[in-house]
Amino acid sequence: MSEKIVRIAELEIDPARLDAYRALLSEEIEASIALEPGVLMLHAVSEKAQPELIRILEVYAGREAYDAHLGMPHFLKYMRETADMVRSLRLIDVDPIMMGAK
Amino acid sequence: MSEKIVRIAELEIDPARLDAYRALLSEEIEASIALEPGVLMLHAVSEKAQPELIRILEVYAGREAYDAHLGMPHFLKYMRETADMVRSLRLIDVDPIMMGAK
Repeated sequence: MSEKIVRIAELEIDPARLDAYRALLSEEIEASIALEPGVLMLHAVSEKAQPELIRILEVYAGREAYDAHLGMPHFLKYMRETADMVRSLRLIDVDPIMMGAK
Repeated sequence: MSEKIVRIAELEIDPARLDAYRALLSEEIEASIALEPGVLMLHAVSEKAQPELIRILEVYAGREAYDAHLGMPHFLKYMRETADMVRSLRLIDVDPIMMGAK
C-alpha cells in the first residue's frame, strides 16, 4: 500500500462567482467523503479578509485512492462547472507533523 | 456561546532547529487535544519542498476556549521553548466552507 498523500490547495476564485463556487466545492467534498473510502480529509476554508482566497487541506489514503478520485463523476462535475471560476490554483505537497482533532 | 474560531498559522522556522521545533509542536498539539475540551483541531504540516515552512489549521470552540488555551502550561512551554526558533509567524482568520473527514 502506498503512503498517504497530504496536500494543501490554494485557489483564487472570481469574486463574482464565489457563492456558486462555494456551493459546488461543498457538494464535491460531501460526495468525496461519503462515497470514496480513500478520501480521508477535505477541509476547505476561505480567508476572512479576502474570501476569494480558498485553501483546502487534503488527505488521501494513497496514490491509488487519489488517482481513483480524479475519475469520479462528482469530481469531474466539480472540475467542469468550476473551470471558469478559478483564477489560480497552487498545489503544495506537505508532510504531516501532527494531526490532532476530536 | 461564541462561534468557533478557525485559523491558519503560517510559520517559518530556523532550518537548523527544525527537528527540535517539530518535537515541541507535536507535544503541544497532543496535550492541547487531550486536555482542552475547547481545542477541536490542530493539524500541522510542513511543505515537502521547504520543510521550514509550517502551516497549522486550528479550530477552537469559541473565544473563551481560545483565551483559556493561551494560558495553559503546555502552551506557555511551547511558546517559551520555540520563541528563538520561529523566524516569522502569520495568523490568518478563515471561515470554514466545508470540513469533511473520516
